[in-house]
Formats: sequence, structure tokens, C-alpha cells
Amino acid sequence: MSDTTWKYENFDPAGSAIGYRITRKLDEVQSEFQKIEIFETTDWGNLMLIDGAVMLTTRDNFFYHEMMSHPALFTHPDPRNVVIIGGGDCGTLREVLKHPGVGRAVQCDIDEQVTRMAEKWFPELCDSNHDARAQLLFDDGIAYMANCAADSVDIVIVDSTDPVGPAEGLFNRAFYESCFRALKADGILVQQSESPLVLLDLIRAMRGEMRKAGFSSFQTLPFPQPCYPTGWWSCTLARKAGGFDFRAGDARAKAFDSKYYSADVHAGAMALPPFVAAALDA
Amino acid sequence: MSDTTWKYENFDPAGSAIGYRITRKLDEVQSEFQKIEIFETTDWGNLMLIDGAVMLTTRDNFFYHEMMSHPALFTHPDPRNVVIIGGGDCGTLREVLKHPGVGRAVQCDIDEQVTRMAEKWFPELCDSNHDARAQLLFDDGIAYMANCAADSVDIVIVDSTDPVGPAEGLFNRAFYESCFRALKADGILVQQSESPLVLLDLIRAMRGEMRKAGFSSFQTLPFPQPCYPTGWWSCTLARKAGGFDFRAGDARAKAFDSKYYSADVHAGAMALPPFVAAALDA
Repeated sequence: MSDTTWKYENFDPAGSAIGYRITRKLDEVQSEFQKIEIFETTDWGNLMLIDGAVMLTTRDNFFYHEMMSHPALFTHPDPRNVVIIGGGDCGTLREVLKHPGVGRAVQCDIDEQVTRMAEKWFPELCDSNHDARAQLLFDDGIAYMANCAADSVDIVIVDSTDPVGPAEGLFNRAFYESCFRALKADGILVQQSESPLVLLDLIRAMRGEMRKAGFSSFQTLPFPQPCYPTGWWSCTLARKAGGFDFRAGDARAKAFDSKYYSADVHAGAMALPPFVAAALDA
Repeated sequence: MSDTTWKYENFDPAGSAIGYRITRKLDEVQSEFQKIEIFETTDWGNLMLIDGAVMLTTRDNFFYHEMMSHPALFTHPDPRNVVIIGGGDCGTLREVLKHPGVGRAVQCDIDEQVTRMAEKWFPELCDSNHDARAQLLFDDGIAYMANCAADSVDIVIVDSTDPVGPAEGLFNRAFYESCFRALKADGILVQQSESPLVLLDLIRAMRGEMRKAGFSSFQTLPFPQPCYPTGWWSCTLARKAGGFDFRAGDARAKAFDSKYYSADVHAGAMALPPFVAAALDA
């Protein structure tokens, strides 16, 4: 391994780091918004960094993409119209389109370069980009949601970077009010919600902002995500009303493959560890 | 943070690394078996490294210690006599002794210096070291199990380092045969079984050796463990016969606190993700 080196992301808010053994840099682009770098690793396939933060690897992105999509889609009674804010690597879009009932999935990421790099270095995530039901927009997700027709969307998935820089405006009441307005009565908002070990305060704050925007019920689902700080991540679902019982029978009978998600894993993720439940008062 | 630096563990088998922001080295000892170092971190309390590998931090050891003990103890119908092989930091012993039915818990770690360092830098883990039911031995765990009276033990917990160096002999048929002989008919062996993402081959091999030693049923439980490679870890339970239904009512009514473990988390961990189940043929 004489030609390898180690590349680390030091994550200041957690005081911890994750790193990979890399063989070479494959690509780099400075977009209008951020610096995107691609590395080849020895064990994790390709690695994308945005402004130095690990976004995804070939090997472990399935945890995140499956958990950002299937729990929400199997909780909604009949999801047809899905909007993804962010998600430029197209992995969430691919999972969403595995649901045959979905008639339309709009992906709105502000940075076209993320998608161009994904097409080049993570082509398997872009398998469904040319699905007739998919619409890829490269635009401001905050404006997109603000302009969305009221009562028109079944699921909004906020698949963003950390709440600093371009994604900061995706974690506040004004944005959640747009989502609330755009969602139908039985709609679901789901957002990546960082590490349930070190960023519980952020999850609590997010839920507080969602509540101010009108959402009344919440569910945070933890899952492993080795490439993100602490290796343990979460998504948070919010609804206007009602609970989070999901279509377990449909999930069990699903006609597509998944590596991490299953009806039982979904049910298991609903059991919050005591220290998380206590912090979220869930 | 001008006085801080970053300390990384590059984990070669996975090609990934985990690191911490540290303020200073607190202690170091070269024992007969290994080099033990203690660092002070900015966000994770104290950090113990053995031969450069992260063993535990103050902040996140609860995941591991709770999952190495409570699932096995709540699966056994009436655990009274427990043996811990390894476990020199005493955190597993502390969890085991929270079960009032346990009458005796022997901890047998080959390296006394691990326990001395834990007493000094992780005193909260050593809370129960003077419990009248506890017996701390500093001896070879392989020999201890080989000499154990047949049919005398309810639970054997193998809380060891990785299967290289001093712990190598804890992952093979000969050792498992000693455990099998020492365990009563309804006894349970539980062993830390590394990352279910990158070390599935090892888990499969462990189960194979356990089977050759006579064990007939197995259960691997994944759980988050931020300080270990990939942040996702597992323990594997083995029994002579019978399944892994656990005393959920007792777990729900337990009179002690836990941060990660609960009856629902235990049930959730029993749902293996599809890619893990497929690899283990579980």
C-alpha cells in the first residue's frame, strides 16, 4: 500500500474525525456554491467531499439513501407526488422511483455540479435520472418550495448538507412553512437530521421549528452511516396530523431489493434508545 | 482550540479511520502484553488506546457495554453465574451486576494494567468492582475457560480486543469448546463480533467455529459504536439449543437505568438488515 495516503474529515462540532485510505484524487470542481472533490479509496469505492466534508462513498451510501426514502414512502398511504430538496447525487431519487405508485419525483438541488459529478463517479446512483417520472431541477430549493402549489405534494424529502452554508435555510420555520403549505393533509416531510449522539440539540431545534410551522407529530429514525460523523445518523419525519404506523405488509411484499431497509428494520428504528427519547421528549 | 491536536486510528482491514480532537496525553503504560495510552479529548471525555487502537471513550462506551450484557442476560431465563473474558475496563462487569439475580460475576482479563488504567481514568466504569458478587482475575482467559467446571456457568461474555495479538485465541473452536463445556444446558455465549459492514466474513467464520464446538443457534445484534471502525458494531450470541426470545417483560420492568438498551431497542436489533442476514444466512 505504498501508494496510498489517508484523507481525514475533522468534524469540529463533534470533536471527532473520519478518514479513508485513498489511492488518488479523481476529480475536482469549484462550482458557484462549493468545492466538490472525488477520491478513489482502497476499500470504499469512490468518495465525494464537498468543502472538505464527506458526502458519500460508493460502499456505504445505501444506508442513507434507503432510510431517507423508504420509511416515509411506506408510512404515507399512497405516495404519488414526491419532491426532493437537495439530493444532487440522485441516490434518493433512485430509491423513491423504486415505488411503482410514484407518478412524479422532482429533485431540486441548487448545484448542478453535484449531479454532474455523481453521473461521472457514482453512475449507479443515477440509474433512474432518465425515468419518465423524474424531473431534475437545478435551482434554489427554498424558492421551489415557497412557489409550490398548496396541497399538491405527498412527500417532501430534504436531503441536504449540514445546516451551514447553502443548506442553512433548509432548517428553519420559514422553509418548513412552505413545506407545510405544499403538502397535502396526509403528507410527510422527512429531513436528514444529523447524529443522534452529538447533535441532539439540533434535532430538538428542528422539531421545534417544524412545530411552529404547523407540523404536529414527529418521528426520528436512527440508522448507521459510517461515512458521517460518529457513524450514526438519523432522519426526522413530520406530519400535519396522525402517527407513523407504516404499511408493513406492503414493505414486506415490496418488489424491489434493498440492502439495509426492511419492514423489520423500519419497525426496529422506531424504538428510540432511552437517552434519545428522553432528549427529544418523544 | 489552539492547544488541540488530532489523533487518528487508521484501521487497515477497513481502509477507514476514526479520530479525536485531543488536548493532551494523560497517561501511558507498556504492560507485559500491550501499550496502553490515555488521552484527554475536547468532546469525548477520556480516550483509551491499546497498541494504537481505540478501546473506549468516556462518552460513548455505554453502547458497547450495555449491548454486551443486557441482551444476553435478558435472554437467559435466570442468569446467576456470569463469566467475563477480557473486559478489563470493567464496564461490562458493571452492567452485569445491575441484574439483581446475578450471584457471581468473574472478570478474567489477562492484563491487570487495563483495569488499573480504567480505575484511574474511567472510575465510573469501576463502580461495581468492590461488589461482593464480583471477582476480578488477571489471568489467561483461555486457560480459565478450559479449567472451568463443566455445566457451571450461565453466561460467558467475551469482551476482547480484535482477533489479533492477545485476543487471537478467543476466536477459535478450541476456546468455544471450553465455553460450551462450562455452560449449562440453557447457557449463553456472547462475544463482541466487530463491524457488520466490513467484517461480515469474520462474523461468519466465528459462527462456523462456534458451530463446530457444538453451539446450534446464533444471533448477531448490530448496534452503533462511534469509537470503533465504521461506527457500527455487533455482538453475537450462541446457545446450545433454543432460540433468542427474551424476557421482554422483565426488560421493560428493569429497576436500573440504561442509556441505549431497552426492551424495544433489543427487539429492534434482532431485525438484521437484509445484506447482513443474507451474508450470515440468518
